[in-house]
Amino acid sequence: MAAGAEEDLLRANLSFYEAIGAGDIEGMDALWATQVPVACVHPGWHALDDRDEVMESWRGILTSEAAPAVACRGARAQLHGDCALVTCYEQIGESLLVATNIFRRLDGPQGPQWKMVHHQAGPCNLPPEALEEEPEPGPVQ
Amino acid sequence: MAAGAEEDLLRANLSFYEAIGAGDIEGMDALWATQVPVACVHPGWHALDDRDEVMESWRGILTSEAAPAVACRGARAQLHGDCALVTCYEQIGESLLVATNIFRRLDGPQGPQWKMVHHQAGPCNLPPEALEEEPEPGPVQ
Repeated sequence: MAAGAEEDLLRANLSFYEAIGAGDIEGMDALWATQVPVACVHPGWHALDDRDEVMESWRGILTSEAAPAVACRGARAQLHGDCALVTCYEQIGESLLVATNIFRRLDGPQGPQWKMVHHQAGPCNLPPEALEEEPEPGPVQ
Repeated sequence: MAAGAEEDLLRANLSFYEAIGAGDIEGMDALWATQVPVACVHPGWHALDDRDEVMESWRGILTSEAAPAVACRGARAQLHGDCALVTCYEQIGESLLVATNIFRRLDGPQGPQWKMVHHQAGPCNLPPEALEEEPEPGPVQ
């Protein structure tokens, strides 16, 4: 069951990057919790802690002509009951960002689902090649 | 009780910055969970996800001659049962970093305590003046 929870969590994390890659604003909106507060820190930004503001920021990013092609790499999960976090790398071209994504398992129409409650991404000192040999993510120099 | 939990959480978050300010390596170590996995992303670094490695990084930072004087400002809590996160700003001189600190409430010798399980800090687009009107900063030098 814990393994299933982690698998679901990593799938939810991947859906987040798929929504970015597809410019899917509705998909992005559906990923974020509606029953509890959320917050978001885009790279170099300040913290947004109002859901409408968070969604507006994603709308701006996903509809921008410079919308980034992002690949999620090296995802690692930490489960804390109904709360969980994933650390991962966001490869954009030849650069990496490092991200913390926090999820909460909340009841939905199809049963409990991992929903995002927080995202922070920022610059990272690793080149993408540094991740390639890692069998399961996780960087170390 | 929720109010008490939030107060305890913000106090734990403040202790983190007090430990940095005091170069208190033992205090820093005591703040981090030992019973569950932890991870840490220093500004511009990659993710460290081994507790020893995280503590070694703090030892390096806190014993450095360039150890930063950090003030925690604008802390906001999100409680998710026994897991919680705080977003806040770290003022270092005339610059701000923005941070996500994740805590888990774990049993200790004196009862349940909020222990850090994750920290990520990165650059921020706000100058410190932008925060000045915030009512509950919780500064420490």
